[in-house]
Amino acid sequence: MSRRVAAFCPGHISGYFKRVDGPDAATTGSVGAGLVISEGVLACVTPAERTDITVWQTDHSRNRVRIAGDSPPIRYAMKKLSVDASVMTECRLPVGAGFGLSAAALLATITALNQLYDIGMDERRIAHLAHETEIVHRTGLGDVTSCRGGGMVVRTVAGIDAPVRRIHGLSGPVSAVSFGPINTPSVLGSPGQMEKVAAAFPSGEPKTIEDFFSYSRAFTEKSGLITPQVREVLDFCDHNGINASMTMLGNGVFAYGDDAEPILSRFSSVHSMAVAKNGPVLLKEEP
Amino acid sequence: MSRRVAAFCPGHISGYFKRVDGPDAATTGSVGAGLVISEGVLACVTPAERTDITVWQTDHSRNRVRIAGDSPPIRYAMKKLSVDASVMTECRLPVGAGFGLSAAALLATITALNQLYDIGMDERRIAHLAHETEIVHRTGLGDVTSCRGGGMVVRTVAGIDAPVRRIHGLSGPVSAVSFGPINTPSVLGSPGQMEKVAAAFPSGEPKTIEDFFSYSRAFTEKSGLITPQVREVLDFCDHNGINASMTMLGNGVFAYGDDAEPILSRFSSVHSMAVAKNGPVLLKEEP
Repeated sequence: MSRRVAAFCPGHISGYFKRVDGPDAATTGSVGAGLVISEGVLACVTPAERTDITVWQTDHSRNRVRIAGDSPPIRYAMKKLSVDASVMTECRLPVGAGFGLSAAALLATITALNQLYDIGMDERRIAHLAHETEIVHRTGLGDVTSCRGGGMVVRTVAGIDAPVRRIHGLSGPVSAVSFGPINTPSVLGSPGQMEKVAAAFPSGEPKTIEDFFSYSRAFTEKSGLITPQVREVLDFCDHNGINASMTMLGNGVFAYGDDAEPILSRFSSVHSMAVAKNGPVLLKEEP
Repeated sequence: MSRRVAAFCPGHISGYFKRVDGPDAATTGSVGAGLVISEGVLACVTPAERTDITVWQTDHSRNRVRIAGDSPPIRYAMKKLSVDASVMTECRLPVGAGFGLSAAALLATITALNQLYDIGMDERRIAHLAHETEIVHRTGLGDVTSCRGGGMVVRTVAGIDAPVRRIHGLSGPVSAVSFGPINTPSVLGSPGQMEKVAAAFPSGEPKTIEDFFSYSRAFTEKSGLITPQVREVLDFCDHNGINASMTMLGNGVFAYGDDAEPILSRFSSVHSMAVAKNGPVLLKEEP
């Protein structure tokens, strides 16, 4: 039986953000704040002469569905490492819906490959490669920086080496519903819409989870990105005193605390998770 | 056996576009040009006391996968019509990847419901409802206008009642590869990127399919939206003299003519189709 290494990396829900362009990929990214979540991506790697990558998703009924037979970002990172392997990633949350799963998939896969082939990268080099891949492939801006550790993350400087503030000890559950991706053409062709998003960025920094939801919600309202489904859920959360905001960027809502799950469940299947305590972790190594 | 009506609507690949905001949904949309394609969405509707909507996709291996258990835009349109029904939609192309499938799903479903319940809407009222739904739910801008008929479509005025120019008689095959959706955060936070997209809109109007690819390709190059995978495919198409451009907006490439399919197949599974001759069509009615 061939050697096999598995690693897990948490996902990330962004509450508010602003794109920042730097002179290179390492300094390009975003500022903002979000929650690192206990749901994320599991990557399993085994040695192979030709790289093959399969993306699996496990749905609410525990059916495992093969959702892609390749991943250009993972392939790009592997080319940079000059390694070939058989890679399988698996997640439960929906892909492309604002849960930072591309960053999680990259960090989990590179962490597992580093161990499998004794590449000897430290955590920082792993994160740099994952972040560069995200910037080049336009799959994310601040998710790798956030997913390197757990907690509620406040980023006031952009890029992979920028300092971040992590607030730990948030023990309440995080619930989310997703109605799919945000439609790109409806915003892309409109500089006015984009300026609105950039102008919605709050001044100041959240210090508590309540602050975070208040900043995120103000951003959501000013951004002009609220869809009819999100509006309906947010209004109902307000009515019931639930801390809730729109997942940036996906057509969905996330909320915090014990009372959130039954409220959200009126609208769609709820993804239940916690605030993650750690970033990527190696899971096991078979002999 | 309960009555059942099926309708099909073609999809639409946008080559270039610009968002235009009008005073209401009917006049909001986009200008640009694209190809109406023979792949699209099949909708089957049967009477039901409570609305349920299931979205199916058939993959390259002819596996039928249930990809969603609801569709907020379809639900919205049905609420406007004050009808309940069991709705099933099916497509072969990937969803959210720039093939105009949300417009096709709305036009097919509303066309089928109109027949099922003898609602008596004419083609224009059906198109108005589908377009309003797209604008409200941010699922599209110019796709409904385009999918009302077939051909290569040039839209110089935005909105659902705007005149369009259709060029028919294009008999060559259309081929497309998709690497997934475009990442929204990487563009959304950046007004500079958005201005670039708006500024990339070409002056003049394409009169032939070669013109169309030349306009689309110039827009693609100026837009700053080209991903590494798309760049690789476009370069290879250029090298082989293939008319090709980026699907707006999805991370993919579409190309025209007999030689395109073998070229694109080097990069990913190819979706093979034709330029559609017509818009939505009723398929059958049982019994």
